[in-house]
Amino acid sequence: MSKKILIINTGGTLSAVMKGNGLIPGLSIYDMQKELKMVSGDTDIEIEDFCSLDSANIFPEDWSQLAERISECRNSYDGIVVIHGTDTLAYTSSMLSFMLRNIGIPVVITGSQLSITNPVADAMENCRCAIHMAASQIPGVFVAFNRKVMLGCRASKVRSLSFDAFESINYPNIATISSLGMKIDKAAVPDRTGIFKLSNTFSDKVCMIKMFPGIHRSFLESLADQGYKGLYIEAYGIGGMPFLKHDFIGTLDKLIKGGMTVVVGTQCRYEGSKMDVYETGRRTLEIGALEAHDMTGEAALTKLMWILGMTSDLSEIRDYYSLNIAGEMTIK
Amino acid sequence: MSKKILIINTGGTLSAVMKGNGLIPGLSIYDMQKELKMVSGDTDIEIEDFCSLDSANIFPEDWSQLAERISECRNSYDGIVVIHGTDTLAYTSSMLSFMLRNIGIPVVITGSQLSITNPVADAMENCRCAIHMAASQIPGVFVAFNRKVMLGCRASKVRSLSFDAFESINYPNIATISSLGMKIDKAAVPDRTGIFKLSNTFSDKVCMIKMFPGIHRSFLESLADQGYKGLYIEAYGIGGMPFLKHDFIGTLDKLIKGGMTVVVGTQCRYEGSKMDVYETGRRTLEIGALEAHDMTGEAALTKLMWILGMTSDLSEIRDYYSLNIAGEMTIK
Repeated sequence: MSKKILIINTGGTLSAVMKGNGLIPGLSIYDMQKELKMVSGDTDIEIEDFCSLDSANIFPEDWSQLAERISECRNSYDGIVVIHGTDTLAYTSSMLSFMLRNIGIPVVITGSQLSITNPVADAMENCRCAIHMAASQIPGVFVAFNRKVMLGCRASKVRSLSFDAFESINYPNIATISSLGMKIDKAAVPDRTGIFKLSNTFSDKVCMIKMFPGIHRSFLESLADQGYKGLYIEAYGIGGMPFLKHDFIGTLDKLIKGGMTVVVGTQCRYEGSKMDVYETGRRTLEIGALEAHDMTGEAALTKLMWILGMTSDLSEIRDYYSLNIAGEMTIK
Repeated sequence: MSKKILIINTGGTLSAVMKGNGLIPGLSIYDMQKELKMVSGDTDIEIEDFCSLDSANIFPEDWSQLAERISECRNSYDGIVVIHGTDTLAYTSSMLSFMLRNIGIPVVITGSQLSITNPVADAMENCRCAIHMAASQIPGVFVAFNRKVMLGCRASKVRSLSFDAFESINYPNIATISSLGMKIDKAAVPDRTGIFKLSNTFSDKVCMIKMFPGIHRSFLESLADQGYKGLYIEAYGIGGMPFLKHDFIGTLDKLIKGGMTVVVGTQCRYEGSKMDVYETGRRTLEIGALEAHDMTGEAALTKLMWILGMTSDLSEIRDYYSLNIAGEMTIK
């Protein structure tokens, strides 16, 4: 029997049309029906619009509603495809990996670098890959782009112009398409660890900053005044930050003592943090900061938003954060 | 006649030793004299200590003093090597590219992922490459790491653990070492555009933020209250940012009207911004934001600090920022 796939449109370049002031999302999923049908193979597709947004305008409240809609549909379809702008796609796919933890069907986010109306676009190929993955019966949240499938919580947009825009960071691809068809690396698919339960709350009191030489302590201190409960810092290298003339570790110590949850990762694209090697890293751990290890920035940030949406108990926050929820973190 | 090379030590992993609380910089350049001699080939090396810091503790005032020291020495040596921690190396090499614009000798920054005291370290190979480049008579500021030489304003640390830690972003390597020896790509070396004049002032009122879904407008607004004169934003994709429910472009408009210089780039690792394509990008340019194009974050930020240290005239800032100063930006 052919698989039943729901395709949900949120907008982005894939559905973009030219208007006076540049490209904007414009096509509804019904405008793209014929093209989607052409790449649906032997699956049975149904379509619906969720929103029509440039993904720069997608915010955590949209993630929450999208997760709810996917949860509602999960028993009526064999798989779900989400069409999404590429700009914040990896943030959305990371957060959906947490909100839809242990979902029993494939949920595959895709998009494109050129509009489906452009004759040389990557749009139809990406939809083809996403629909095929959605019919695979492999449960989880994935990103399909440029003939590869990645874990949703490991994908990141690394190229702003090329069709090969996304990479799976510090983790193998889940599937690749070649002349051998779609090859799935089953060993890379994380095990489900329990039954599905929608968990789509989040904290909107989380901030992200990237460390740089010349950063002022007052910049960090101002975050407490602004009421943030969580902070993800992209530090240097394997997790270093200043501690001499400009004592950031002292400032973080105060923030943490004041109840803020601080997570430290790296601004290096690959290989993650390893904070037990240098004096700076060790001191940061000693004051109670959590470590992002090899998570992407997108996963490290959304995981913090998600956990702080569930609990304000400091021990629980720490326990959850150090747990590998959806394959986002390699436990060493 | 053999070339005369000065090696200046600032600290970092290359000179690190194990202390109770983890690795810290410890060796002076004199402790490393024998090792440096072994990789100096037929050059004549002189050595000096500048500081002994984990590079997370290197700040803009150190760049300024280091530039001054290099400037003082420029006519007494054929080339200068700077030993530096890897964490902020690319920020330092970017800023030195601006402060030492048009310098007539090679200035080569290097470091390592393991201490020179470790028998399997990359330290001596990196020094070998740096010294060889410093003797090349090719003027400019470079980074030597893992048998390749990159422009100082194009290098970025992309891997936190591997020896192959640095990449030249959106620009070819200047040189590579293989069984053919050191091959220099002369076409990639930027032309000098004038005579050397030390220009080592900077503004310490510059901030960097990385955009994320859920970022609050008040976070941006708080930067004006904190007295910042310049802001570099790592936006999404080719330069997008939110403008609907959360009107960041409106907030930036206010900051710019209030006299802040705002530069927008991308958080994608490769290929840079291209803000004239989408409605969001165009609107950002219309309100007077500057564009980072294909600059690294390190170059985009330090260039802004450097220019704001020289002038507060808005037209001059704009003119300087859109100029390719040291090879950091591809003019399209």
